[in-house]
Amino acid sequence: MSRFALIFVVIASATAVRASEPAGAPTPIAAEFKVRPIGHVKKSEDRTWIVLDKQYAPGLLGLDGFSHIHVIWWFDQNDTPQKRAVLQVHPRGDRNNPLTGVFACRAPVRPNLIALSLCKVLTVQDNMVEIDQTDAFDGTPVLDIKPYAPGIDSASDVRVPQWAGPAK
Amino acid sequence: MSRFALIFVVIASATAVRASEPAGAPTPIAAEFKVRPIGHVKKSEDRTWIVLDKQYAPGLLGLDGFSHIHVIWWFDQNDTPQKRAVLQVHPRGDRNNPLTGVFACRAPVRPNLIALSLCKVLTVQDNMVEIDQTDAFDGTPVLDIKPYAPGIDSASDVRVPQWAGPAK
Repeated sequence: MSRFALIFVVIASATAVRASEPAGAPTPIAAEFKVRPIGHVKKSEDRTWIVLDKQYAPGLLGLDGFSHIHVIWWFDQNDTPQKRAVLQVHPRGDRNNPLTGVFACRAPVRPNLIALSLCKVLTVQDNMVEIDQTDAFDGTPVLDIKPYAPGIDSASDVRVPQWAGPAK
Repeated sequence: MSRFALIFVVIASATAVRASEPAGAPTPIAAEFKVRPIGHVKKSEDRTWIVLDKQYAPGLLGLDGFSHIHVIWWFDQNDTPQKRAVLQVHPRGDRNNPLTGVFACRAPVRPNLIALSLCKVLTVQDNMVEIDQTDAFDGTPVLDIKPYAPGIDSASDVRVPQWAGPAK
């Protein structure tokens, strides 16, 4: 499902202890928030679309001016308490890769099942955005679309660990 | 709060009509999903940390091998039905910028209040990641951290509209 997919997982022990702080007490944070799909991924043989529910179509105004988008979607097939409790995996399902935290890889199991794909925009029409491709399955719920903006989304002097391949 | 901040908003009309499909019927999608903060943003005078709740600290294993992370956080100050209904804005609060869909800018009002910041990792220690900076306020809930991987996160031949500045 993902280039950072996994097979072998380790469920880390959990404690209810609050994190220590650099300074001061944390602002109280709500226990949970609700997200609602704005649409879904639609795949045919060789094409992929983000299909928004019609009421969200006005949110696409001007998107055709961008070449790339971040698509934020939900690993809905993994929405179980067990999979949301996984904190460490062997990336890409390869036990030769070092045991790695889910926040240090793109594993599709993690506390919040948020997925992030950078996609190329092919066309924008009505409530549909045709994109080059995504790892998401057909029918996957989409939560948000954000345009790619080089000033805030590009990185230089990138470093990644050996298992993640060359930093190009 | 954001380089894509706004002042003037337009609440688009909403309908319950289902999106038309390229082919076939959509897979039924759950009406909502729950996300829970894994920690929060902590800011002092000139430093910024992501402070995870202690039970999530194992999820950081190996993150120190990466130079950059995507931090996914929640625009918690905008979590009202009214702000989540906004679908079009004038980006950066400038009425000279064209009316733009929230999925075509990084406005902090949108149906799902998910924010995305690319950050430089300075240090990783225990349950804390020191980063260079983020637009998020002190105390902002954090939902996820993903390492930046050039192979999937970098774009070439980028095009953006004039209001979004030069594509560099």
